[in-house]
Amino acid sequence: MDDIFTDEYYMRIALSEAKFAFENGEIPIGAVVVANNRIIAKTHNLTETLTDVTAHAEIQAISSAANSIGGKYLKNCTIYITVEPCQMCAGALYWSQVSKIVYGASDNKRGYTEMGGKLHPKTEIITGVLEAECSAIMKEFFQKKR
Amino acid sequence: MDDIFTDEYYMRIALSEAKFAFENGEIPIGAVVVANNRIIAKTHNLTETLTDVTAHAEIQAISSAANSIGGKYLKNCTIYITVEPCQMCAGALYWSQVSKIVYGASDNKRGYTEMGGKLHPKTEIITGVLEAECSAIMKEFFQKKR
Repeated sequence: MDDIFTDEYYMRIALSEAKFAFENGEIPIGAVVVANNRIIAKTHNLTETLTDVTAHAEIQAISSAANSIGGKYLKNCTIYITVEPCQMCAGALYWSQVSKIVYGASDNKRGYTEMGGKLHPKTEIITGVLEAECSAIMKEFFQKKR
Repeated sequence: MDDIFTDEYYMRIALSEAKFAFENGEIPIGAVVVANNRIIAKTHNLTETLTDVTAHAEIQAISSAANSIGGKYLKNCTIYITVEPCQMCAGALYWSQVSKIVYGASDNKRGYTEMGGKLHPKTEIITGVLEAECSAIMKEFFQKKR
């Protein structure tokens, strides 16, 4: 039964969140937090809607997951993000002590690996899950913006 | 008339926010955002109260100031923070494009300079304002915690 709960399965749900973001004029990034195969947070970037530069998908997801758990730390959780986290979100994920981060597309301009941020040493990192789709929706968004 | 509006003046208000945090069992860090000598946000760390690792003073301040301005960017604002921002908050301040950051005490363990984060290249940075007081309240808090 557990076989359906792959990284691709949850990333596809994060991608559907990215699509909601796209439809609302937001940079299309989605995030999902999973604990024991259960989704405890499902969010997307809301910076335009909330007029708030801090309202990235990951920040929303961390706050929402903590609310769901009733505790600050996400030690037994996995977060699925369609795009590599920025420095701010890497810092938030660091503080959350999330067990595992899975992201789709890399962000060579503003990703934390480029900006010089750090993740928690205990956090496992998996990259490139549904990379082509996660990247394609970003490219489509910015092409339409021009 | 403008002479009273020094960096020390606003940092003292940020310090009073840090004291509120202390009294509420929060790591005592305060932040104030100023535009044209007017305080548009005055906040403190709320991670325990909100059960949210992202609820640092700076994140609260950026969201609150953007709400006050009605726009995402803090291009003509100064933020006063009692302690050096962490990687997450440095990232948030980067996105906010805040004009000037003034902080009191350095954080040699979790500050952005140690963690490897970056501020916006256009942001002016002033450090060490009321450093002794900003540092003392942190030390007192952690000594009581032990």
